[in-house]
Amino acid sequence: MVKPGEDLRRNLHDQFERGDVYAPECPSRPLLDHLTSRWGVLVLVLLLDRPHRFGELASLIGGVSDKMLSQTLKTLVGDGFVTREVGTDGPVRVTYALTDVGQGAAERLADLVEWLESNMNALVPA
Amino acid sequence: MVKPGEDLRRNLHDQFERGDVYAPECPSRPLLDHLTSRWGVLVLVLLLDRPHRFGELASLIGGVSDKMLSQTLKTLVGDGFVTREVGTDGPVRVTYALTDVGQGAAERLADLVEWLESNMNALVPA
Repeated sequence: MVKPGEDLRRNLHDQFERGDVYAPECPSRPLLDHLTSRWGVLVLVLLLDRPHRFGELASLIGGVSDKMLSQTLKTLVGDGFVTREVGTDGPVRVTYALTDVGQGAAERLADLVEWLESNMNALVPA
Repeated sequence: MVKPGEDLRRNLHDQFERGDVYAPECPSRPLLDHLTSRWGVLVLVLLLDRPHRFGELASLIGGVSDKMLSQTLKTLVGDGFVTREVGTDGPVRVTYALTDVGQGAAERLADLVEWLESNMNALVPA
């Protein structure tokens, strides 16, 4: 069954064999926005280390609210960068982990963050 | 002369010998926000190719308004990622180029964009 919007999406898909972030209608553009969102970057780089529970992410990311973190994770799960797994026994435990494609994105974001942290003092005057 | 806020800034500078984007008060965090802003990414990656005039950037970046582009460039110039040069003869020409440190950032953002453009079809269902 063809869902509403599916034709348009298939057309875009064919049109952009390879993404083009400079074209406003290319589906890569919202993906780039999600990857580079303030909290998206910080979540993905943490998950590169290992899977984390919600509360762990909340305590490691200074300044994030539960609402923003939850919204960020929902978006990343929706895009296919992150998986959300609910434990089946004991107290409810929700764990977030990178998908294969999320791993590729997170590695590149970690390079950027690592570079910035090392070069910050060239940018911020003492 | 000590400008207002300079002491605080020096303290932060000493405190963060190396940046820590997970600390909300670290000066690296606004820098990361600027680097990863929607238009910031697209501007920096274009400048990696060569310096560009304002109008060139505006026409290459689909969907950006003059106001947003101008605000983005002002922020990147203020951070020290980009230089703004006004031509001295003939019609007024303003050219934007990467600084050395901007080059480092832009290379990493270009890796991310390149990866996303190549992997988009693993993310967007056909």
